[in-house]
Amino acid sequence: MNYKSYCSFNGDNMEANIKENERIDDLQLKGLKIIQNVEGFCFGVDAVLLSDFAEIKKGQRVMDLGTGTGIVPILMAGKTEAGEIIGLEIQSEVAEMAQRSMLLNHIDHRVKIFNEDINNALDIFGKESFDAITTNPPYKHGGSGIVNPEDAKAISRHEVKCTLEDVISVSSRLLKNNGRFFMVHRPERIVDILFLMRQYKLEPKRVRFVHPYPGKRPNLLLIEGLKYGKAFLKFMDPLYVYDGNGSYTKEIDEIYRRGEA
Amino acid sequence: MNYKSYCSFNGDNMEANIKENERIDDLQLKGLKIIQNVEGFCFGVDAVLLSDFAEIKKGQRVMDLGTGTGIVPILMAGKTEAGEIIGLEIQSEVAEMAQRSMLLNHIDHRVKIFNEDINNALDIFGKESFDAITTNPPYKHGGSGIVNPEDAKAISRHEVKCTLEDVISVSSRLLKNNGRFFMVHRPERIVDILFLMRQYKLEPKRVRFVHPYPGKRPNLLLIEGLKYGKAFLKFMDPLYVYDGNGSYTKEIDEIYRRGEA
Repeated sequence: MNYKSYCSFNGDNMEANIKENERIDDLQLKGLKIIQNVEGFCFGVDAVLLSDFAEIKKGQRVMDLGTGTGIVPILMAGKTEAGEIIGLEIQSEVAEMAQRSMLLNHIDHRVKIFNEDINNALDIFGKESFDAITTNPPYKHGGSGIVNPEDAKAISRHEVKCTLEDVISVSSRLLKNNGRFFMVHRPERIVDILFLMRQYKLEPKRVRFVHPYPGKRPNLLLIEGLKYGKAFLKFMDPLYVYDGNGSYTKEIDEIYRRGEA
Repeated sequence: MNYKSYCSFNGDNMEANIKENERIDDLQLKGLKIIQNVEGFCFGVDAVLLSDFAEIKKGQRVMDLGTGTGIVPILMAGKTEAGEIIGLEIQSEVAEMAQRSMLLNHIDHRVKIFNEDINNALDIFGKESFDAITTNPPYKHGGSGIVNPEDAKAISRHEVKCTLEDVISVSSRLLKNNGRFFMVHRPERIVDILFLMRQYKLEPKRVRFVHPYPGKRPNLLLIEGLKYGKAFLKFMDPLYVYDGNGSYTKEIDEIYRRGEA
């Protein structure tokens, strides 16, 4: 059983306080688990890649903006020596579920979940208060094709509650000088991403495109920005999710296994 | 014999007025040839890819900014139904050599070479006077590692005589509304490129990364901008130059053969 198939199997729901439509999945990483709502937004490969792409050093204070189920903080708690990890989530039911995952994993002393709007983050935490920020924000423009703006999945996918500019401008102010910003997003938004990162002094330093398989255009991008960094962007080799035969590539297998107990 | 090996064979130097250190290479495209200085800057795969990437319609007026040997205008003259093509080159000896290539090919009625600084282009041609612009500008920042700023190769490779901002701002003013801008450049400069294109109202619409081979990071990018275009960038499938066996890929072969007589 592997958490790549995160939405396709039944977890063990016996051991924790879970609600209707929720289930627990084993992350195959140091015994860590996650509670997810089967009718809500389940984490995907993007969260796994982001937590692997983010270079977090020992003792650093890290913020995950728009943490959702808390998947990125849980994986970072397992894979890195981060000091304190804060997860901020605007949707109260989702934040409450994330908090139960931290309790379930006994990592609530390291990972704190806040049910807050990111636009309040500066008031709560103060400027220049984090060493690193991770974020897997909504990918789609606010206006595009939303059926119900109160729907939890819509809030996770569309810029209903915060725009890309909110995410980048708040991140810049929350980061210490030379703090690092790590984001996963869609390649189609790269003009907005690079323009806003430079505008808000999070100079893009490293980018990796993720392709479903060799020869196909990328469908995800991983990007690192450095607060007040000098202009120089390093391209990493592309990451292919599947090989020509429809199997996960060796590198994807390695990323999923990294930090495994 | 194929013009991919442009710098590795002797051309037929008997038929035209050529100078010392010059040679004529057959472009294997409708009988077109090019004069190059063996000690100067010889055209590369970037010029071939740019002339293929640029979508030029029948009768359009096209500017090639920083045309060098005139390779891009010659290939466009052979491959497209462009009306008038202007090639602008700041170095007088290089511009004069390019002009001799147009005479040699009997295309001097369609392709006009101007020995001018791009910063004078608006005075000469007027604003909003072109349907499309192609450019293969110097890739390197002005200051980086130049031995001799008067050296012809240095001028072709480094931003000695014009910066990326000059190229993009002048292109924007030279283009008609809805005119198209086609550029080949280095991926490492993508932040500058996208930032400046948006700033000067050449909204990036289409990008293609060129990789030396599958799995390696890109070393060229092809980008199209639309004057006053709406924000939406389309990623094309990546282009690989070599396959796993060190041979040109089928697609590169097709690009080199496109328009062949």
